Amino acid sequence: MSPLSSSLLNPRLSFSLKPLFLFSQSSFAPRKFQIPRQFVSAKRKTFSALASEQSSATDNGGRSGGGGRSGALSPSPVVEEVQRIDVNPPKGTRDFPPEDMRLRTWLFNHFREVSRLFGFEEVDYPVLESEVLFIRKAGEEIRDQLYCFEDRGNRRVALRPELTPSLARLVIQKGKSLSLPLKWFAIGQCWRYERMTRGRRREHYQWNMDILGLPEVTAEAELISSIVAFFKRIGITESDVGFKVSSRKVLQEVLRCYSVPENLFGKVCIIIDKIEKIPIDEIKRELNATGLSEEAIEELLQVLSIKSLTKLEEILGGAGEAVAELKELFSLAEKFGYSEWIQFDASVVRGLAYYTGIVFEGFDRQGKLRAICGGGRYDRLLSTFGGDDVPACGFGFGDAVIVEVCEASIEGHQ
Amino acid sequence: MSPLSSSLLNPRLSFSLKPLFLFSQSSFAPRKFQIPRQFVSAKRKTFSALASEQSSATDNGGRSGGGGRSGALSPSPVVEEVQRIDVNPPKGTRDFPPEDMRLRTWLFNHFREVSRLFGFEEVDYPVLESEVLFIRKAGEEIRDQLYCFEDRGNRRVALRPELTPSLARLVIQKGKSLSLPLKWFAIGQCWRYERMTRGRRREHYQWNMDILGLPEVTAEAELISSIVAFFKRIGITESDVGFKVSSRKVLQEVLRCYSVPENLFGKVCIIIDKIEKIPIDEIKRELNATGLSEEAIEELLQVLSIKSLTKLEEILGGAGEAVAELKELFSLAEKFGYSEWIQFDASVVRGLAYYTGIVFEGFDRQGKLRAICGGGRYDRLLSTFGGDDVPACGFGFGDAVIVEVCEASIEGHQ
Repeated sequence: MSPLSSSLLNPRLSFSLKPLFLFSQSSFAPRKFQIPRQFVSAKRKTFSALASEQSSATDNGGRSGGGGRSGALSPSPVVEEVQRIDVNPPKGTRDFPPEDMRLRTWLFNHFREVSRLFGFEEVDYPVLESEVLFIRKAGEEIRDQLYCFEDRGNRRVALRPELTPSLARLVIQKGKSLSLPLKWFAIGQCWRYERMTRGRRREHYQWNMDILGLPEVTAEAELISSIVAFFKRIGITESDVGFKVSSRKVLQEVLRCYSVPENLFGKVCIIIDKIEKIPIDEIKRELNATGLSEEAIEELLQVLSIKSLTKLEEILGGAGEAVAELKELFSLAEKFGYSEWIQFDASVVRGLAYYTGIVFEGFDRQGKLRAICGGGRYDRLLSTFGGDDVPACGFGFGDAVIVEVCEASIEGHQ
Repeated sequence: MSPLSSSLLNPRLSFSLKPLFLFSQSSFAPRKFQIPRQFVSAKRKTFSALASEQSSATDNGGRSGGGGRSGALSPSPVVEEVQRIDVNPPKGTRDFPPEDMRLRTWLFNHFREVSRLFGFEEVDYPVLESEVLFIRKAGEEIRDQLYCFEDRGNRRVALRPELTPSLARLVIQKGKSLSLPLKWFAIGQCWRYERMTRGRRREHYQWNMDILGLPEVTAEAELISSIVAFFKRIGITESDVGFKVSSRKVLQEVLRCYSVPENLFGKVCIIIDKIEKIPIDEIKRELNATGLSEEAIEELLQVLSIKSLTKLEEILGGAGEAVAELKELFSLAEKFGYSEWIQFDASVVRGLAYYTGIVFEGFDRQGKLRAICGGGRYDRLLSTFGGDDVPACGFGFGDAVIVEVCEASIEGHQ
């Protein structure tokens, strides 16, 4: 049954000393429906207008003047003197009153049920991790947005901005006691200290699914298949959303032609990921600063504009891994029955330094929203932490853009 | 079905491109079983030995020397140079690999299902709150253990040590749009920066249920009834655990006899809560320092030793609210069928400053463990934040001691 059924939408459950029997929101029958309209319009305010509302409401939140050490108490904020406190959550964070919690529960239940259907086991990690886990040198946006501080024991810690480094840490810790391949999923809150523009929040929940120990493209194919299954369950179709797929090996093969050192690879990917966000001249300047020749840059940008696998094969030749793996993925997509959902797009590189192979992102076909989800292969992450590498791929899927997709889908059908 | 069924206990789910259909762990049929033995013995290491293992393993975690401002990056910890990182989670925190996550899911599902059976709606609040929300002047342990820091916008923030102040904040924010009585539950992670002794961690999950808008003792009676229902579902009986119940109004009436000012009440309660933790002479000294006469202190300690409601009535008389409300609660417990579970014990005051009436805590009958859960009435919390007061009561129930109770219960039946 729907978690949004009338009994749950009632503003108040009737009070009774006798327990009220409510059907579980997590009953397991597949559901094919979208978020009902009245629910979405209530949500729209919460999800879209939140940032702007809060930026005015809570800008006076930082009332303690001291630039003191974290861990130390601020100069006695006095609540007993009955000053009315700021009743908003801290800037960029959310409360979940019952009406919002129902949406979150509905979404998380679908994340969980799809993950379990595909045979993944749930895991979690600390929200607070050592800062060192997230510090990479490739110039990622994520590093500048770290919610980090020093705890009372003088440890540098950070609220996790993503889940994958914690997964890598745990896999190294468990070592040989884990049998591969392992298939894990997690739903965890992540934090980024962003400037509060564009309606973005500073925390979001992220659904991750990861497969470790499988070097074959079947792993990527299964991950995308899981996300497609999730979309179908909540009534989102291939006319609403799709996946853009590419491989970092495309870039790698181009860079190799121009004898660009391997250790620049991550850095170049991060620059390229910003192509749609900053002017192209700035991109060229940054690439040039890493040591790439102008010729290499032009060739790179040329290749990045390719939207057809046939065209890519013409340019790179059929011998390389990039083309072979992408062809394999499209062939598997056909067999799995979701080829309508995916398309090749060389411009997709993703913003995290550690991807090494196929990368993908979910997008709305109206082109109005940020990426719905993103992922790829990261076969060499574990060795950056001093562990033995294990073939790995996974994705992250946030709890914010998907709600906008549902709203847009409902509007589209009106 | 059991969430610990054989398919889930398999160390590895078989890998397949075809989705594996697993029954949901959250199916709704009532379950009457305890955690199977092999599961508990696997858990014992994780839950009990964690702190001591970690205190040696991760004491070198604070490797960044800079005492710099929070928010600033530490002087470049270099992970790309392939130093092996510390693979343990930060001191006092936990990973949840699949085997631990299954226990967490099992526990949380019971929390959720019991809460919904009793007609409570789920809510949540930010993990990161304004520090001011948790700063009270009564000398609570919780204040000294705040995981607080200054964010990049110079706001004093804290990882929440408990959920009730956030509930109060949200209720004030929502104001008249909420219809009373409201019945909310939450399951959230809470943080306390404790010295890592006695096997305690720095984070735990806490199940809260709260009723706002009901001044009658029926609210307390329903909360205890919910916890009893939870215990029964997981196979814990009244021979394993019980509830000690008292009322802060007992203390209040004694203090009133000695003309102790009302504003000292919270402080006195916090001191008394430490009776079993620090020497009695120290308690007397602290009480004396607040201005209580030696006579008042002796009378107070005398009253606190009472374990029978009849005896209490003899001493305080039958006219006061304390005795009347407690008698009402015991009468309701009889009607609800859980009178075997509860007993009067005047020594129970609980460690939070904001309780105003009936207080209770769950305890193991072997007397080996800390309190399993605790709660009470807090009718005047909202006005300390500048809001209008609303009759309120609730409880917190951690995810740690209950696991020890299950272990002890299994051992008891061997």
